Amino acid sequence: MILYLLDLAGVAVFAISGALAAGRRSLDLLGVIVVALVTAIGGGTLRDLLLGREPVFWVRDPTYIWVIIGAAVFTVTISRWRRLPERSLLVADALGLALFSVAGARIAEGLGHGGLVCVVMGTITGCAGGMIRDVLCAQIPVIMRRSQIYATAAIAGISLYWLLQSSGWPQPWPSLAGMSAVACLRLAAIVWDLNLPVFTLSDPDETGKS
Amino acid sequence: MILYLLDLAGVAVFAISGALAAGRRSLDLLGVIVVALVTAIGGGTLRDLLLGREPVFWVRDPTYIWVIIGAAVFTVTISRWRRLPERSLLVADALGLALFSVAGARIAEGLGHGGLVCVVMGTITGCAGGMIRDVLCAQIPVIMRRSQIYATAAIAGISLYWLLQSSGWPQPWPSLAGMSAVACLRLAAIVWDLNLPVFTLSDPDETGKS
Amino acid sequence: MILYLLDLAGVAVFAISGALAAGRRSLDLLGVIVVALVTAIGGGTLRDLLLGREPVFWVRDPTYIWVIIGAAVFTVTISRWRRLPERSLLVADALGLALFSVAGARIAEGLGHGGLVCVVMGTITGCAGGMIRDVLCAQIPVIMRRSQIYATAAIAGISLYWLLQSSGWPQPWPSLAGMSAVACLRLAAIVWDLNLPVFTLSDPDETGKS
Repeated sequence: MILYLLDLAGVAVFAISGALAAGRRSLDLLGVIVVALVTAIGGGTLRDLLLGREPVFWVRDPTYIWVIIGAAVFTVTISRWRRLPERSLLVADALGLALFSVAGARIAEGLGHGGLVCVVMGTITGCAGGMIRDVLCAQIPVIMRRSQIYATAAIAGISLYWLLQSSGWPQPWPSLAGMSAVACLRLAAIVWDLNLPVFTLSDPDETGKS
Repeated sequence: MILYLLDLAGVAVFAISGALAAGRRSLDLLGVIVVALVTAIGGGTLRDLLLGREPVFWVRDPTYIWVIIGAAVFTVTISRWRRLPERSLLVADALGLALFSVAGARIAEGLGHGGLVCVVMGTITGCAGGMIRDVLCAQIPVIMRRSQIYATAAIAGISLYWLLQSSGWPQPWPSLAGMSAVACLRLAAIVWDLNLPVFTLSDPDETGKS
Repeated sequence: MILYLLDLAGVAVFAISGALAAGRRSLDLLGVIVVALVTAIGGGTLRDLLLGREPVFWVRDPTYIWVIIGAAVFTVTISRWRRLPERSLLVADALGLALFSVAGARIAEGLGHGGLVCVVMGTITGCAGGMIRDVLCAQIPVIMRRSQIYATAAIAGISLYWLLQSSGWPQPWPSLAGMSAVACLRLAAIVWDLNLPVFTLSDPDETGKS
């Protein structure tokens, strides 16, 4: 029950971040809701499709959609009067990332998949929504460019979760340790502006290769 | 049978609109066919994936693909000699939107899903193809920006359909009422250039949040 | 067994091409791996989703992911010292396209689908990964614009495969003939810079249609 409420809270935070991104691109009200939906449930939806868990989770439990629409309308309304506290939102977003990543990994684990698939599915759950949001906004996803250790934090935390879990630690310790690792890494990366190295290749002549 | 023919006609109209969009971006013949395919069956495909109706509808009945390829080749050929009547195409597109939205909602309803999921699935069936088309053309989807009540018309019409259906009206009245509402709203929005309000947020400092 | 090794080699080649594309857009290390993954397994993943073969192939056999991560890291490392031989990569890419296209068609055929669905699924297997890569990089997919007969080579080769297979030729002849046709057409198109005709439509007034 607490997990479910946390999950809804994480969805709401992601929806607010999506609505703000939509506002920066001057979308209309429907566009705001679409971007909020995609940001908040895109990752879990892709995970469910790839794992064959259909219908996807929000079709089975439409509460998620109500929460997202509510969060999007709230964001649009409140933004008329005051600026949302971006700093607190970044912290909330880091917590949402931690929650979603480990939850996604546990779902894959529950279906009997191995460590690598769990890490990939957890990372998709936490990060793919933001990537689809950026693609919808016709941008190269920010986490692929200069991410301040976003997906990398998810990967590290899920790996820690998997390691502890495989070593026989009882729940909820592996989950708590994994989530803490994701959140701490992400927050540390924001505070000290940590980034992954960039791979740059000059290529004057675009080949026709595809 | 009539429904099936109408469905194919709707697919053809969406394919023509996709081929025209491809022509505006100077794609090659294959690109035209890809964009026509994506525009015409993208929405229904996404709906089938999310609901777990696999293989998706056009794999079960490839007639759709033949119709789309035919419509795309027809558009490219005819455009050499004369301009297609954009005005009539807009009307046909509104009818296609009406047909697809209500059909998508009825499919979700037939699987036992509730009102919200039916509205979401109907809207996806009617609108997601055009969104994927815009993403493939590296643009922010037009229905998220200045849509002249496109997805909104679908949402309103499907809601009307659902209301009447839940109140016990016998078919085909709820379907007809829902489709008429979608088509009338959309056409009215074109004629009087109605749009949803836009949500604009200035944000000079792009945060690294994703 | 040989087929499996060839498959892994094809995945590695596609991953290298993805990593190079990422380098041209100055992505960070994680972005390089994401683009390599999407390029190499995007097509097969979409095919599996559309056909209802879930969980998708790389969830069932994560070896693919290790190979791709290895190829991406190899590309980033080697690029510090020397330029990868683009010419050889184009040839390897054509072979990968040939292999993937026919393999995708055979999977659809094995599920009992007809000729058109096999051609579509084979083409998706060979080409969709590169399209998703371009969408992630916020570009119109290169194979839709000026493709030097890329998807078209796949379509022609798969059609030849299907024709021979339907005429009762025993395996592996139809497969070999189809793959050779794909590779030869693609290589010929690179050497002589062959392209499909482009469909251009001037349209000064963007209608609000979607």
